[in-house]
Amino acid sequence: MKLYEFSLAPGPRRVRIFIAEKGIEIPSVQINTRERQQFSDEYRAVNPNCVVPALVLDDGTCLGESVAICRYLEETHPEPKLMGRDAKEKALIEMWNRQAELEGYLAAVDAVRNSAPMFEGRGVAGVTGGVPQIPALAERGKQSMGRFFAKLDGRLADSSHLAGDRFSIADITAFVTIDFAKRAEIEIPEDCANVARWFAAVGERPSASA
Amino acid sequence: MKLYEFSLAPGPRRVRIFIAEKGIEIPSVQINTRERQQFSDEYRAVNPNCVVPALVLDDGTCLGESVAICRYLEETHPEPKLMGRDAKEKALIEMWNRQAELEGYLAAVDAVRNSAPMFEGRGVAGVTGGVPQIPALAERGKQSMGRFFAKLDGRLADSSHLAGDRFSIADITAFVTIDFAKRAEIEIPEDCANVARWFAAVGERPSASA
Repeated sequence: MKLYEFSLAPGPRRVRIFIAEKGIEIPSVQINTRERQQFSDEYRAVNPNCVVPALVLDDGTCLGESVAICRYLEETHPEPKLMGRDAKEKALIEMWNRQAELEGYLAAVDAVRNSAPMFEGRGVAGVTGGVPQIPALAERGKQSMGRFFAKLDGRLADSSHLAGDRFSIADITAFVTIDFAKRAEIEIPEDCANVARWFAAVGERPSASA
Repeated sequence: MKLYEFSLAPGPRRVRIFIAEKGIEIPSVQINTRERQQFSDEYRAVNPNCVVPALVLDDGTCLGESVAICRYLEETHPEPKLMGRDAKEKALIEMWNRQAELEGYLAAVDAVRNSAPMFEGRGVAGVTGGVPQIPALAERGKQSMGRFFAKLDGRLADSSHLAGDRFSIADITAFVTIDFAKRAEIEIPEDCANVARWFAAVGERPSASA
């Protein structure tokens, strides 16, 4: 297997933390998206979608999507389980992971991609240009992050982790989201003490530095 | 189990088709989102996120998210498998399902929610108001759908179904997306013959009327 990723991008970080929690070693290659290496002919031949991360299996199959990579690793390296042990736990982790992504991660991406100068004309990932930034969408992303923090804080008042009493992929998604959102100057609100406590605890796991 | 859904909304339709393919019977309740019933105190007690669909299990657990519901049903009613048989197939279906959602479904939702008068002030699902529509985002959604059709057409030139040679949840997501996008006057482009052929074939499955 070979992992194509970029150390400064949030999508690959989700996968790096997942891999670290599993204790797996996978050789990796840096694709510097700040230098637009994802659009090179060489990388296009690996992943025609021109995004990172991508995991290429030994038979040449390319998994060019973060959660698909995690799913593959969960199936082939089952312990520790990060996507659930039985039907109900799997479904609850899926729900919280997707809510963290749809309501948090994508909102943070909206806020960053539609405001940071480096994404001018590239408001959508994997597209070389011609997609103007939308300032109103950056603003909507910030508002959505506010709702996400409030929801997360309510959940973490009753639960040690996002999807229940065990660490899961949902915690990884939410943690990476919050860390990434700082690039748009979005911080954990002062009244979200539960989020702050959980964020500090996840940040102390060895995988957080991955 | 009880399914809360709305017959005219695309998210619940993904789940209805999945259930029909599985051949399961689940009692359901209509939550008319056009009449804002998802914001009623009664439904808020069922699913505090105020979105449909939601599946309430016999022990009272609420799964308030489409793919989480599908995951639960895949685990508890394994045949026919719609989310993959082995690690690689599960990962490829996850990848195609997520690409259909992130690049197609969410683009169609952007196009519809940011242009249709019924969503004025409600640009994000589950929020009662205060989220202005963004016309530029509706336009971006249409452009993204154009790229999605082109990608889909290339894939379906080589593959009978989106994630391989078998029908899967990825086909359901893409099918519902394309049907839903018609509400924003987005149609399958004339040069996408592979998409048109596949769309007609999926539409002939008994589950398509679910």
